[in-house]
Amino acid sequence: MKRDYVIVLAPDSFKESLTAKEVCEAMEHGIKKGSPDVTCIHVPMADGGEGTMQSLVDATGGTVYTRRVTGPMGHPVMASYGISGDGSTGILEMASASGIHLVPPAERNPLAATTYGTGELIRACLGHGIRKLLVGIGGSATNDGGAGVVQALGGRLLDAEGKELDYGGGELGRLARVDLSGFDSRLQDVQVEVACDVTNPLCGETGASSVFGPQKGATPDMIRILDRNLRHYAEVIKQELGKDIADVPGAGAAGGLGGGLMAFLNGTLRKGIDMVIDFTGLENRIRQADMVWTGEGAMDSQTQYGKTPLGVAKVAKRHGKPVVALAGRVGDGAEILYDLGIDAIFGIMPGASTLEEALAGGRRNVERTSENIIRLMQAMNR
Amino acid sequence: MKRDYVIVLAPDSFKESLTAKEVCEAMEHGIKKGSPDVTCIHVPMADGGEGTMQSLVDATGGTVYTRRVTGPMGHPVMASYGISGDGSTGILEMASASGIHLVPPAERNPLAATTYGTGELIRACLGHGIRKLLVGIGGSATNDGGAGVVQALGGRLLDAEGKELDYGGGELGRLARVDLSGFDSRLQDVQVEVACDVTNPLCGETGASSVFGPQKGATPDMIRILDRNLRHYAEVIKQELGKDIADVPGAGAAGGLGGGLMAFLNGTLRKGIDMVIDFTGLENRIRQADMVWTGEGAMDSQTQYGKTPLGVAKVAKRHGKPVVALAGRVGDGAEILYDLGIDAIFGIMPGASTLEEALAGGRRNVERTSENIIRLMQAMNR
Repeated sequence: MKRDYVIVLAPDSFKESLTAKEVCEAMEHGIKKGSPDVTCIHVPMADGGEGTMQSLVDATGGTVYTRRVTGPMGHPVMASYGISGDGSTGILEMASASGIHLVPPAERNPLAATTYGTGELIRACLGHGIRKLLVGIGGSATNDGGAGVVQALGGRLLDAEGKELDYGGGELGRLARVDLSGFDSRLQDVQVEVACDVTNPLCGETGASSVFGPQKGATPDMIRILDRNLRHYAEVIKQELGKDIADVPGAGAAGGLGGGLMAFLNGTLRKGIDMVIDFTGLENRIRQADMVWTGEGAMDSQTQYGKTPLGVAKVAKRHGKPVVALAGRVGDGAEILYDLGIDAIFGIMPGASTLEEALAGGRRNVERTSENIIRLMQAMNR
Repeated sequence: MKRDYVIVLAPDSFKESLTAKEVCEAMEHGIKKGSPDVTCIHVPMADGGEGTMQSLVDATGGTVYTRRVTGPMGHPVMASYGISGDGSTGILEMASASGIHLVPPAERNPLAATTYGTGELIRACLGHGIRKLLVGIGGSATNDGGAGVVQALGGRLLDAEGKELDYGGGELGRLARVDLSGFDSRLQDVQVEVACDVTNPLCGETGASSVFGPQKGATPDMIRILDRNLRHYAEVIKQELGKDIADVPGAGAAGGLGGGLMAFLNGTLRKGIDMVIDFTGLENRIRQADMVWTGEGAMDSQTQYGKTPLGVAKVAKRHGKPVVALAGRVGDGAEILYDLGIDAIFGIMPGASTLEEALAGGRRNVERTSENIIRLMQAMNR
């Protein structure tokens, strides 16, 4: 191996074990043990889902802030947002303020659940003078079409009598008018990107309420109400703002928050991994490297895993670079990833162990596996 | 990688999961999936301990025979021996006929335990017209100095009144005379090699009885008797055969069977891994190969593991070939193996799992890991 060999380290987090940044660090530690002269470039990755805010903050040397906001059921919760190292970009995951994990199963009620807390996080980001906002929208407890976000940012959603709507998707049927006179004007200078990997429209059989309602606690009757209300919401938005979000793919993501961000914040919906790849400048880093390492807690043939490794591999293959992936769990069917640009996948486990041991040993296991991969590469090049 | 790349596959067995031959097969299967043009040379290995007979039979395309013999406590047991593919060599492990695992803890008694069954296995080997006999001697239940082997092969161990001694190390104190007139004459044409990794002498503080007696059920009083008896046994052997085995390193192996095989069968004691390396012609195979793969069920810094991988690596390094090892469990301290010639060690586990799953999944896990190693090698060579 040549002396100035350069490896881009672009893993996702290993959920419940290591952040993407920690995976990078463990990889580099192992690599350096085996070959001190290798240069490692850390690009902690994510796919727009859980962990995206942390990875992008880490990728830019930014800062995570935590604040008390309105939770999905109206109770206060502690939620986080990030500001990139250069201060230009706010990064947040709606689940931090409005996620389903914040509501005990018995209390889940999408008629009442609100995205108001997500709006508060956005407002907090605006306070940092950002020019760009990246929003991850997986794991919502809500079905309010982003109405709570609009309200938190100063928009008024009024009924026929001019009274403000209360929280939740159950209220939207009464929406008559939108008053954006008090809407946070700082948003005009902010470009909003929404990481969204689903293509569900706002309403109908494949819409937010029908597809995602049940996992948020909606009964069939509630789904009918929620779907009808979102349709009404879209009609009012069309009348008032001149934007038609009803049938846009992805508008139904996160209980219609996708559509709401499009309509009210001029948000652009993008695949999460593409947003992350662009934002981190991954392609330029890879262009200058000899090789790319990626990885994820679990990799298999299922679509919910491997988004990040596959996205990274796609970029690497455009530039003809070898791609190695590490995974805490290499699941059945992972071999289909070979055809999609990942040259080799290594499990990191040192032997039989419990899941708890596996999660606790992540750093050591990534390190050891990395060392051995680099040692093999060196041995082949002697 | 060049088209006619040759890899020697020289793993030990993965205990309780795969024989060495099965490891070779799984490695080749994975390698061929990744790179169909690679040539794999199978050299199933062992270190002289458990699994040695099977590996050497497999390495030579030989046959395993099973027969009913006298167990260590006098009860019949089913035991196995192997004959090499060319019919020239008998291979056996004393533990198969006279091993500690054959006796429930409560019944263990080295005063009475005999190697008679091991002698019966040797006699069975002689029936195949062998010219060479390889004996692995770990895991014995006995402390009889190989007296049972001598008796089973037609030798007579007599007391002062000319009566045959009964089984066991407790009898040896009465030995007065050895009568080899009926000793199996076919042994004269057979070269005997004994795989022995311990250097304990027959008697004394570091001798067979003191060191290994307790784990065979000997009390302190029994140890005194056994040690005194072995010393007497060595004196009679010296008088009768003109051979002094009392202080030879390794004579104390397997309750003195090491010494007995030296004295009565002209056996040569060798390190197990060296015996296996010679017998399999490993060095010649490696000389013609581009790379060597080895492995073992568990590899770590402890001496009881890694003997085979280290022995293989030593040969490979004499010829400057890269060495990769696979292991079901990569234990703490395995990294010291790097300095001893193993370039890289890969665990094969796909994720958290129970020991049962690990053992059951051995073949698939070796295969998958092998495929990914070869895929990495290919990717680096594109």
